[in-house]
This record gives sequence, C-alpha cells and structure tokens, in this order.
Amino acid sequence: MNFVLDAGVAVLQRTPASLRALLGGLPDEWTGATEGPDSWSPYDIIGHLIHGERTDWIPRARIILAQGGERRFEPFDRFAQFRESQGKGLGGLLDEFAELRAQNLVTLGSWRLTDAQMALEGEHPAFGAVTMRQLLATWVAHDLGHVAQTARVMAKQYRDAVGPWRAYLPVMDR
Amino acid sequence: MNFVLDAGVAVLQRTPASLRALLGGLPDEWTGATEGPDSWSPYDIIGHLIHGERTDWIPRARIILAQGGERRFEPFDRFAQFRESQGKGLGGLLDEFAELRAQNLVTLGSWRLTDAQMALEGEHPAFGAVTMRQLLATWVAHDLGHVAQTARVMAKQYRDAVGPWRAYLPVMDR
Repeated sequence: MNFVLDAGVAVLQRTPASLRALLGGLPDEWTGATEGPDSWSPYDIIGHLIHGERTDWIPRARIILAQGGERRFEPFDRFAQFRESQGKGLGGLLDEFAELRAQNLVTLGSWRLTDAQMALEGEHPAFGAVTMRQLLATWVAHDLGHVAQTARVMAKQYRDAVGPWRAYLPVMDR
Repeated sequence: MNFVLDAGVAVLQRTPASLRALLGGLPDEWTGATEGPDSWSPYDIIGHLIHGERTDWIPRARIILAQGGERRFEPFDRFAQFRESQGKGLGGLLDEFAELRAQNLVTLGSWRLTDAQMALEGEHPAFGAVTMRQLLATWVAHDLGHVAQTARVMAKQYRDAVGPWRAYLPVMDR
C-alpha cells in the first residue's frame, strides 16, 4: 500500500482511543506487566508514544519542510518515558497522548502537504536521507506496532494459565 | 500471572470497544488488507471473534459446568467467518460482536463460579482434559492475540512505504 495522507491520518486519529479502550481503568497487574527484563509494559509504551508526539514526528517533519541548512534529525530517546512518566497515572498519560496527538494532527493538516513536499528529504542520524512520505508512513506503522505490542505483552501474562491451548496461540511465543 | 476471573473479565469487557476504536469507519483498504494469501484481514478477524462468541467460549464452559456424560467439545470452525460475514458491513459486525460479548459476560457473571468449578474439566477434541480456568484464560488471551494481529496486519501494509525505517519496526517482519 502506498502512503496516502488521508488514509494514514485516519489511523493516527484512532490510536489514542483504541489504547484508551484497551487499557483505561485496567488493574496495574495488566498495565504494568512486561515480557521480561528490559521489555516494556503497556504503561511504558504510552509514555514512549507521548515522547514521540513531543520530539519525533512533527519536529522532524518541520525540519524536512523547512529545508534549511541543517536537515539532520535529533536522535530519538527511546528511554525517555522511564524518566518522564515518573509519578504519573496511566489515565493521565492516556489523556496527554490524546491531546498531543490531536494538536499534532491539526498542525499536520494545516500544512496541506503537496506531493512535491511529500518527496522532500531530511537526514536521519542512522539511515541518512529519508522523505516526508516515509516519515509520515512510519508514524502510522509505529503506532500500529505499539498497539500490537501492547496486546501481545498482555496476552503473554496468561502463557501458563492457558495450559495446552498455548499451542494454538502463536502470540505467546512471538 | 494466574487467571483471576475479575481481571480476565476486565479485558474481555474492553475488547469490542478497542476494536471499534481501532477499526470503526476506516476505509476498506485498511480493514480488508491481509498479510498475504490464506491470512486474515481485520474484517475476517471480527467475524472469527463473533463465531467464537456463538460457538466456542460459553458453549464449552456450559459443557464443563454441566459435568454430563458427554464432555467433549464440538470442534471449532476456524473458517466460519468466510461464510457467515458474507454481505455484512464491518460496522454491523462490530455491533454484533459487542452485543454477543456483553450477553456472554452476563451469562458468565450469573454463574458465580467457585474455585472448585474453575477446576472442573471438559474434553478438548485435540488436547484432551482442559479445565474451566484454562478455557477462560484462553478466551482472554485469544482476544488479545487477535487485537495484536489486527494492528500487525495493518502495520504491514506500510512495509515498503516506511523505507529504511523498516529496520526499526520489528512488527513488519513478525
């Protein structure tokens, strides 16, 4: 599937509500569960998505759009949520994510990006040249990857509880 | 994590709304997309979940609870949705799933299952003896596995569109 802005935005708009429907009000034993050491809980994932709204997608899109002399993106901090989410409840994080996402989609919409702008390039610190279109497609895919991860982390908590059914549940061993 | 009824039900209650938030109103290019031949789209997955509500979880729990002479479950038809969803829109399927799930949780709650009943056994056509507790844990994990699958199938539609970012998106190659 090629990236088409309207179809991508349709997914970006839905992510905060899907994560809220999945996680809102759940006991901590679900939202704080991980896949083992150095893996993330649903709570950690929401903090990571918030950090992306603040520092990744729209800030990088601005750099591409500006086409200034410095087009290299700041490296993204994959561990910022362990600092920034401290002391916050999950409900508040879900609200924060929804608000930031809504603001960012207003910003994106206000740009009315043309096909030519979609082809503009920035410089990724690891990959080198990347386009606006690739950045925006990645924003969408990144959301979906973390929705999948959230559900997978939760499913794995019942790896033993399901008994022999584990053989029919590939999610347990991904 | 051991299976505890209240915590399991908390997830079962949330699945219809999370899938509705993720998929409701999305263009068909998302909801009809698959991972390739013989794999399922989000649309197919909702039909599969509906069939489970009708023929799998509660009907099997009834067999276990009754402890009659015949405790062997009917085999589950994993392909029923290709017949039963025909001609139905996704919005209608999401409604149908939500209604059936709500009814089934009322039934489950009305049983007020004791620890002794949680240990009662039925006979799975492939695995042999399974307990009520394992069946109910599997209901929860099965939901979460299909939520993860739904998001993964969607993410993969941008496998090429994300360009070099694919290297940072493990969901693309699961």
